[in-house]
Amino acid sequence: MYIVIMAGGSGTRFWPLSRTKTPKQLMSVFGGKSMLQRTVERVLPLSPKRIMIVTNVHQAEETRRQLAGYTAVPVDIVAEPVGRNTAPAIALAAHIIGHHDPESTMIVLPADHYIRNEAEFCRIVKVAVEAASSGSLLTLGIEPTRPETGYGYIEAAVGGDSGAAFPVSRFVEKPDGARALEFLAAGNFYWNSGMFIWKTSAIRRELARQMPDLAAAVRRIDLASADWALASLQPQIDALYGSIPGESIDYGVMERAASVKVIPASFGWSDVGSWSALPEVIEGDREGNVAIATAGLISIDSADSLVYAHGKLAALVGVDNLIVVDTPDAILVCHKDRAQDVKKVVETLQQAGRKEYL
Amino acid sequence: MYIVIMAGGSGTRFWPLSRTKTPKQLMSVFGGKSMLQRTVERVLPLSPKRIMIVTNVHQAEETRRQLAGYTAVPVDIVAEPVGRNTAPAIALAAHIIGHHDPESTMIVLPADHYIRNEAEFCRIVKVAVEAASSGSLLTLGIEPTRPETGYGYIEAAVGGDSGAAFPVSRFVEKPDGARALEFLAAGNFYWNSGMFIWKTSAIRRELARQMPDLAAAVRRIDLASADWALASLQPQIDALYGSIPGESIDYGVMERAASVKVIPASFGWSDVGSWSALPEVIEGDREGNVAIATAGLISIDSADSLVYAHGKLAALVGVDNLIVVDTPDAILVCHKDRAQDVKKVVETLQQAGRKEYL
Repeated sequence: MYIVIMAGGSGTRFWPLSRTKTPKQLMSVFGGKSMLQRTVERVLPLSPKRIMIVTNVHQAEETRRQLAGYTAVPVDIVAEPVGRNTAPAIALAAHIIGHHDPESTMIVLPADHYIRNEAEFCRIVKVAVEAASSGSLLTLGIEPTRPETGYGYIEAAVGGDSGAAFPVSRFVEKPDGARALEFLAAGNFYWNSGMFIWKTSAIRRELARQMPDLAAAVRRIDLASADWALASLQPQIDALYGSIPGESIDYGVMERAASVKVIPASFGWSDVGSWSALPEVIEGDREGNVAIATAGLISIDSADSLVYAHGKLAALVGVDNLIVVDTPDAILVCHKDRAQDVKKVVETLQQAGRKEYL
Repeated sequence: MYIVIMAGGSGTRFWPLSRTKTPKQLMSVFGGKSMLQRTVERVLPLSPKRIMIVTNVHQAEETRRQLAGYTAVPVDIVAEPVGRNTAPAIALAAHIIGHHDPESTMIVLPADHYIRNEAEFCRIVKVAVEAASSGSLLTLGIEPTRPETGYGYIEAAVGGDSGAAFPVSRFVEKPDGARALEFLAAGNFYWNSGMFIWKTSAIRRELARQMPDLAAAVRRIDLASADWALASLQPQIDALYGSIPGESIDYGVMERAASVKVIPASFGWSDVGSWSALPEVIEGDREGNVAIATAGLISIDSADSLVYAHGKLAALVGVDNLIVVDTPDAILVCHKDRAQDVKKVVETLQQAGRKEYL
């Protein structure tokens, strides 16, 4: 069993805490360990043979630094020179893992998701590994808890209990509100989590069939002398990424794969897509306020707000539904309903050429 | 002509920028010079003989530091061991100044007021000095621009033009909204600014008549060898303040003085009573946002807010009417309508014994 963690995101929605060199997955968003570190720790009970992190060259150094302390399992870091979405990253990982261990199983996980019940997560993954042994491509489908319009959905042929594998009818793009309500009521629609489990040989077979150009390009990477010292592959990886288009594994492979199954899962999941998602995953005080990394929060008639301020005392007076983020060189105050628009701040900074804040 | 600047305030409404050791008058509230420094600079064109600052022992060191650069006029600093309101401070100043220069005129000014039109301020003070030569106690009455319920008022026997002296009928406590509207319409009511001009001999005479105990206690301070080296008086000043009750000069003297006159004034005054007053005296951008000391403000659909953040980039997204104050160890976010309640934060800190934030 090999873990592949997709850690190439450059998320701008957590500015000013997230920056080019410390995107969301490398941030200490909960005040302690980074989301990448939490993702690594979450899979250790599965006793994987190795953990491969696919990241970006800009973040490779910080990624290496954050993972230096994890020595129980070998950790390999692959640095993409540019982002090309998930299909090339997965194809490259499958090529390397399959070369060393053709009979292996891959578990592909995003680096920046939150999971409350880690034991249940491990249980579900083990079920998926078992179900993948037949050659099916397995994906974890999060049982929806609200008519969310911000996620893609997976429709199963029939709905069913958490922890069993069901054939997938189709992948569905982000729905509008009315359809999201239908999906929630139907009982056989699940949120697409981006978590995949498959035999390495199975995904390589599907890649070769559905994305032959990508598969061929990846196969040209010569692993003969590479062992697991992946740094020596960097020139070949850089060349590969210069020659291939970007594509998601969902669109490139999963939607038309021979046998795709979904395992309904319910382990307290969030993709933590913006600051406004944090109160979902961190319990607030009686007034619904969440204070992260502060030296204390004083609330005078204030509620439902989030404050991130490292080591500072924070005081709120007569406000609600705010997001307040303080960093050494920048401060953000945002209405919770406008958390998606934090990226507009980043765009403004990009246009103004204020790279020191990016 | 002697300037006496009342700088003993311990203002808590500008927390977290104002602290015990740097109250409002010592703060760089506009991002540059402190309000005390601005007050001193404002009176320099009047060519006073000396400037006396009455402050608190806790703030004396910072007061001295801030005024070290002003050498055109001698600056004396008197440090009160405890606050006893304005009457004892004025009585002490009058005792010292009267001892050295019995024929002098005193100009008493708060250290923490904002005045936009400094030339007009000087013109009005000169009119007041002239009017005080007859022995009347002069006060500057700010011509009201709104039905303010937060200030005391001065009623003149008749209303009149800015820059002439009118007999005062009475001092009026803070009115309710209906009476404030009447005062505004009447035309002979003025805001009590706490700025006084009088012959030193005149205020000493009224103090002796109306507050004989205070006057006697102050007279016991032996100035024979003190010259203007006021530091040598400190043991006597400490003893004085241990023995006298607190009282305001308004209640103790002005309300029943023999001849009190008001000079209507209109020079863009604000007592800058809380964070919400700053937008009155600092022009905002097109959206009404005011950024002080920041490295820039990015506003996405945000308006009518104030940000104080030293050297930081500030970003507002979808918010309005907020006060955001960032300091090295604390951060405040407050609705503009609740600026008066910032003192509740300070009270909470006091009750919790978190002195490091006071």
